[in-house]
Amino acid sequence: MNTKRELHILEARMSEVMDLPQPYLLFLGDTTEKGYAKTAFGLRDWATDRCVGEWSCGGATVTTGLPRLTPKEARARGARALVIGVANTGGVISDGWLPSLIEALESGLDIISGMHAKLGDLPQLKATAERHGRKLIDVRTPPRNIPTASGVKRSGKRLLTVGTDCAIGKKYTALALARAFTQRGLDADFRATGQTGILIAGGGIPMDAVVADFEAGAAEMLSPDAPAQHWDVIEGQGSLFHPAYAGVSLGLLHGSQPDVIVVCHDPDRQYLLGHPFLLPDILETIDMNLRLGRRTNAAIRCAGISLNTSRLKADEASQLLADESARLGLPVADPMRAGAAFERLVDGCLEN
Amino acid sequence: MNTKRELHILEARMSEVMDLPQPYLLFLGDTTEKGYAKTAFGLRDWATDRCVGEWSCGGATVTTGLPRLTPKEARARGARALVIGVANTGGVISDGWLPSLIEALESGLDIISGMHAKLGDLPQLKATAERHGRKLIDVRTPPRNIPTASGVKRSGKRLLTVGTDCAIGKKYTALALARAFTQRGLDADFRATGQTGILIAGGGIPMDAVVADFEAGAAEMLSPDAPAQHWDVIEGQGSLFHPAYAGVSLGLLHGSQPDVIVVCHDPDRQYLLGHPFLLPDILETIDMNLRLGRRTNAAIRCAGISLNTSRLKADEASQLLADESARLGLPVADPMRAGAAFERLVDGCLEN
Repeated sequence: MNTKRELHILEARMSEVMDLPQPYLLFLGDTTEKGYAKTAFGLRDWATDRCVGEWSCGGATVTTGLPRLTPKEARARGARALVIGVANTGGVISDGWLPSLIEALESGLDIISGMHAKLGDLPQLKATAERHGRKLIDVRTPPRNIPTASGVKRSGKRLLTVGTDCAIGKKYTALALARAFTQRGLDADFRATGQTGILIAGGGIPMDAVVADFEAGAAEMLSPDAPAQHWDVIEGQGSLFHPAYAGVSLGLLHGSQPDVIVVCHDPDRQYLLGHPFLLPDILETIDMNLRLGRRTNAAIRCAGISLNTSRLKADEASQLLADESARLGLPVADPMRAGAAFERLVDGCLEN
Repeated sequence: MNTKRELHILEARMSEVMDLPQPYLLFLGDTTEKGYAKTAFGLRDWATDRCVGEWSCGGATVTTGLPRLTPKEARARGARALVIGVANTGGVISDGWLPSLIEALESGLDIISGMHAKLGDLPQLKATAERHGRKLIDVRTPPRNIPTASGVKRSGKRLLTVGTDCAIGKKYTALALARAFTQRGLDADFRATGQTGILIAGGGIPMDAVVADFEAGAAEMLSPDAPAQHWDVIEGQGSLFHPAYAGVSLGLLHGSQPDVIVVCHDPDRQYLLGHPFLLPDILETIDMNLRLGRRTNAAIRCAGISLNTSRLKADEASQLLADESARLGLPVADPMRAGAAFERLVDGCLEN
């Protein structure tokens, strides 16, 4: 097998998916609340080597701790794009940010946004970008010409994080596992399916923005044929038990053809976020994902559980992980807590 | 309960969904093969009272048997739109059709198309429509501003046809059941989810063209709150076991919140159409739909099976329906064959 050639093809295909200009200058707007800067913190933590610094405009108090650089300084240090690393209610680009964004374009940086509002819909921004030959990139826009899924099994290994709900740790679990695989010397890629993940990975497909008929096809495109020992660690979306987003989850499951799933769960969450529906049971979640996933990969198995234990003290968390592992007969870990439990989860993913 | 007021609200909401100008003049293009005119035949059979006639251009040999009318004559008889009732390979609008389409616009008809190619992309057609104040309507375009699903249970009764595969009788089964319900004096509406169904119903949502995040929300929008005894008979899409389209099916199932499902199957089909995947078993299909459907309607049940027996003689078909009914313990009928078996299926849908 000509691995080098295969990887070249792989990279060529991924560039159709999305290929963001990096490294980044993180833009914090005029944000005074940490909670609104989750994207910036995610990038600082998971794309550290691709963030040269941060920048903000009048009134901002939030900082990532990265060096404060003007767009011009950032460009001189190699930055290729300014990333809007904050959200606000409504997902709009505030007028107060415009001078900073225009300064970035004039300094030679592209602008990347994961917000709902499209950058190109702001006439001033659009005109400046055109004048300076710069790109305005909305990572919520899926690629064109996604095919419908073939269902044909692809080469290489795949892991998909699945969940009992939305916003329950699927992205961080996938990032932590991809990092752990790489640290063990394996060839692994994190495959992003949501806007923050895409910014971190520098590419991916926003699965929730794909037209329904092409959902599984987009998932096939996201993790193309790869060398036999290569791992794609795919960020899950939604939950098969979510009344609004289950279709996204099922298309992603079928198209990803995972060899391994890891179920993400928050033991403190009783109801789906913002919905009066009880969270499904972990065993039920495993069973349903395996049953449906078998359609495109007969060898699918569950390697373990990722629990969010952030509200517990270290000893309480260890106890809960051990208890749940005994109850379920599977490795159970919190990927945000390094240690033996997490290593057992990684072992569980890699066995066979 | 103020039924009249409720129905008024219902109609007002449906107009957001899609409201096609009717009656129709059916356009057959220059088609010489019956197989390409399936849409025209479907409209003749299921929207008979809303088709005033047919029209075609040079070389056409296919006819629906409806009176041949020029656009001007059709307009005089009340027609409001010309419907492109044929498909060709590639789903494009042939240059040879243009003079006929322009004549229709000039005669005061709107044009409706279910083809992949957008009518408005043809400059000549667009200019003529603008000049005459006429509409070009592509039924593959979903409505704007579809909300995400709430999962909240709606009033009224709902039936969803589901399938072991695509193109296996879900539309015709829903049409036949809606017609049978109406003939029994019930208040029932056929709710269309694909382009041919939308043309027949005069409205609906093309579920496969909706952005994945809004799939279940679109299904909620399609069958809004209704009087307690009202039936929405919803056209299913795809199959939960289809590697490309299962996400569409699951979003439609969750958003439709059906009280009743009817499983559509073709006993002669061994593999999914165009895919090397075995068709799922009927019992497996029932079980999976009920298990997933319970999430948004705990009372969901399977009322019976719709079998396509078109390749069998009448006595062979009767025998197969009886055998399958005994094996499955459920009514089994071919909706294209009127008779006792079909009446038992209708009874099964309406019991409780």
